Amino acid sequence: MNKDGFVLHGAVAYCKDKDTLITYEDAYVVCVEGICRGVFETLPEEYAGLPCEDLWDKLIIPGLIDLHVHASQFQLRGNGMDMELLEWLNHYIFPEEAKYSDLEYAERAYDLFVEDLYVGGTTRAVVFATIDPDATLGLMDMLEDTGLITYVGKVNMDRNAPDYYIETTEESLELTRNWLDAAAESEYRNTRPILTPRFTPTCSRELLKGLGAIVKEYDVPVQSHLSENLGEIESVKKLEPDTAFYAESYEKAGLLDQNRRCIMAHCVWSPDAEVELLKKYGVFIAHSPDSNTNLGSGVAPVSRYLELGLHVGLASDVSGGSTASMFAAMRAAVQASKLRWRLYDEKVLPLSFVNAFYLATKGGGAFFGKVGSFEDGYEFDAIVIDDEPLRSMREEETIAERTERLAYLADDRHVVGKYVAGRKLF
Amino acid sequence: MNKDGFVLHGAVAYCKDKDTLITYEDAYVVCVEGICRGVFETLPEEYAGLPCEDLWDKLIIPGLIDLHVHASQFQLRGNGMDMELLEWLNHYIFPEEAKYSDLEYAERAYDLFVEDLYVGGTTRAVVFATIDPDATLGLMDMLEDTGLITYVGKVNMDRNAPDYYIETTEESLELTRNWLDAAAESEYRNTRPILTPRFTPTCSRELLKGLGAIVKEYDVPVQSHLSENLGEIESVKKLEPDTAFYAESYEKAGLLDQNRRCIMAHCVWSPDAEVELLKKYGVFIAHSPDSNTNLGSGVAPVSRYLELGLHVGLASDVSGGSTASMFAAMRAAVQASKLRWRLYDEKVLPLSFVNAFYLATKGGGAFFGKVGSFEDGYEFDAIVIDDEPLRSMREEETIAERTERLAYLADDRHVVGKYVAGRKLF
Repeated sequence: MNKDGFVLHGAVAYCKDKDTLITYEDAYVVCVEGICRGVFETLPEEYAGLPCEDLWDKLIIPGLIDLHVHASQFQLRGNGMDMELLEWLNHYIFPEEAKYSDLEYAERAYDLFVEDLYVGGTTRAVVFATIDPDATLGLMDMLEDTGLITYVGKVNMDRNAPDYYIETTEESLELTRNWLDAAAESEYRNTRPILTPRFTPTCSRELLKGLGAIVKEYDVPVQSHLSENLGEIESVKKLEPDTAFYAESYEKAGLLDQNRRCIMAHCVWSPDAEVELLKKYGVFIAHSPDSNTNLGSGVAPVSRYLELGLHVGLASDVSGGSTASMFAAMRAAVQASKLRWRLYDEKVLPLSFVNAFYLATKGGGAFFGKVGSFEDGYEFDAIVIDDEPLRSMREEETIAERTERLAYLADDRHVVGKYVAGRKLF
Repeated sequence: MNKDGFVLHGAVAYCKDKDTLITYEDAYVVCVEGICRGVFETLPEEYAGLPCEDLWDKLIIPGLIDLHVHASQFQLRGNGMDMELLEWLNHYIFPEEAKYSDLEYAERAYDLFVEDLYVGGTTRAVVFATIDPDATLGLMDMLEDTGLITYVGKVNMDRNAPDYYIETTEESLELTRNWLDAAAESEYRNTRPILTPRFTPTCSRELLKGLGAIVKEYDVPVQSHLSENLGEIESVKKLEPDTAFYAESYEKAGLLDQNRRCIMAHCVWSPDAEVELLKKYGVFIAHSPDSNTNLGSGVAPVSRYLELGLHVGLASDVSGGSTASMFAAMRAAVQASKLRWRLYDEKVLPLSFVNAFYLATKGGGAFFGKVGSFEDGYEFDAIVIDDEPLRSMREEETIAERTERLAYLADDRHVVGKYVAGRKLF
């Protein structure tokens, strides 16, 4: 890290808002004390003394933000994709997650996840671990060392789960407190805990209420799943008969709170009243198009959510999503929205590429504060892309076209530089 | 090429039929004079003298077959994906294809396409070039040299196209004959010509009829587009008022012929009568899920086509499809079918991974003869996959799971060996 600052010089693209991509053929992106001071076609006098890295025509874009990813499912990427959610959880996911109580397995498996996250385009992520608190702390230690900024959650579940992968309510709450205390002692700089009730089908009201109390006591954010799959929604109706819709099960437990941030993954089938509740509490929706497609769940009406002014970010949702690549997540978001529009509801417009790029940067970045843009005052998260192997021979090719192509063709090979909050990772 | 034969020893997967994946943890695949003689857990005595390449636990699968790809659109991969078909053609595609009359541009651009095809998982492809016969011959020369087996078509179009990229009817027919004569003189071993009227909107009845005569005269197969997009179908209804449905415009011109093979790309919105006609003539449907999604066209009911016994293969359809990777095409096929099922018509079941693998191998391979399987008597097309970087730590991981994962995560990095009709390319 350069405490004073530095300048990156190259081609630049970032989103100002959901419909506006700002591009430069040749510009300077300035970082001072971890904060972006803007993009300039001519470097202002006041920054002339800063070290400048000349990246020629490489592309500089904001770091990508993964708002929902299961580290403990990384070993199952691209498998079991012929099943729907509840069958897939029981057949593949619970047996796999249970293995992480073996800390040796957890260390080896998490190491593969962390390495993949490190080399790709993601600079920040919000992560599910497993119910095991020690394995979760181990994952947090590993992520801390990468310099990536992450939230990590020990999972809670006390019902409708197999004997070999379940907690009692008391145990779940006690382990959660101990885990939060241990995380606080570690004095992480890059890694923060987030409360992680798996979802209402596997969390009793008592557990959720206990977690609601912990949210206030420890001042931590919350993540969970919401209205992903029709079978899941039916099960919540039966399990929680006093709720008008799924999100009320979280609200009644005090888990939605205007003062503390909350992420709900999916929201594919949220009824209007639920959407209103999400807006009221400022909940972030983690849109997971690859996962929602793979598990046959459906497609969230994201352009409508954006029009309504909800917070929406993008997520890989490994391993419902088959890759942790946020380039692929952008592609998936655009593609799923087109099929939803063509096959299901032409009133909800498809996402443009710019919409998807916004979701993967500024949209999800807002969960972390002023993150995901190169506007003045934003934390300096950037990735440098060498897209030469993807370039077209077309002389008229624009920076916007090069940026769009990343969603369809880029992978970790093309990420040649990464900065998080002003610190250079590579 | 080893004229006598050779043996590959490793993990093996191939499809016997659309629902059956045959897998071996450790087996021998035998090639004798270009023909596969089957897969054996113990090498039969009669093949014991053949040279055997030990691939350890690498995965040996049939080469992938791309039934529809536009070489001349390769420079536009991943661009313009916010447009529908007809707008995209006019804005992006026609101006790009017109550049190929500059043979210097054509050579450089086709070289990039050919290189990409060579290093990936594809062993055979059916290719659209442009209206320029010389550039098309240049592409054929390049493809010939790779050892890949391909059909390549000079495109025909005499109406509804811009001034700078159109032929007169007479010119189109004459250039086509000249091109076929020149291709015959080249005595290609791996590369064959295929008649390529772009599609009815840009081909007059007179042109199509002229091509129908050439089909019989030269005994060549045919490829075109059919029922891809609702706007396109509307335009055909207006242009060809004497047809009950789109495919009749090809049938009336004599382009559908039981004795000669025909590929129709897309068939997303084919009415029942059209489907019957395709069955009657044994037409191959080139299913292009990535393209049909990107251009907002829709999703073909592939599992229904398979049940009806139609010929269906898989296609990248670059650059409607954004990648020439047939691994990605398998993923796209499964994903698009799930959203079609969930959002549009639950009576047409999603494609399983095995269905998609069948389409990408034996399904499309049938266009080339006995191709796409390791059964006794099939031409020996194989690729060797080093999926070590994708492997899971799960001890219980099966060959079927490793094969499924390729659709979601493999790229050219993982293709470490390629054989076409018994010849080793690398």
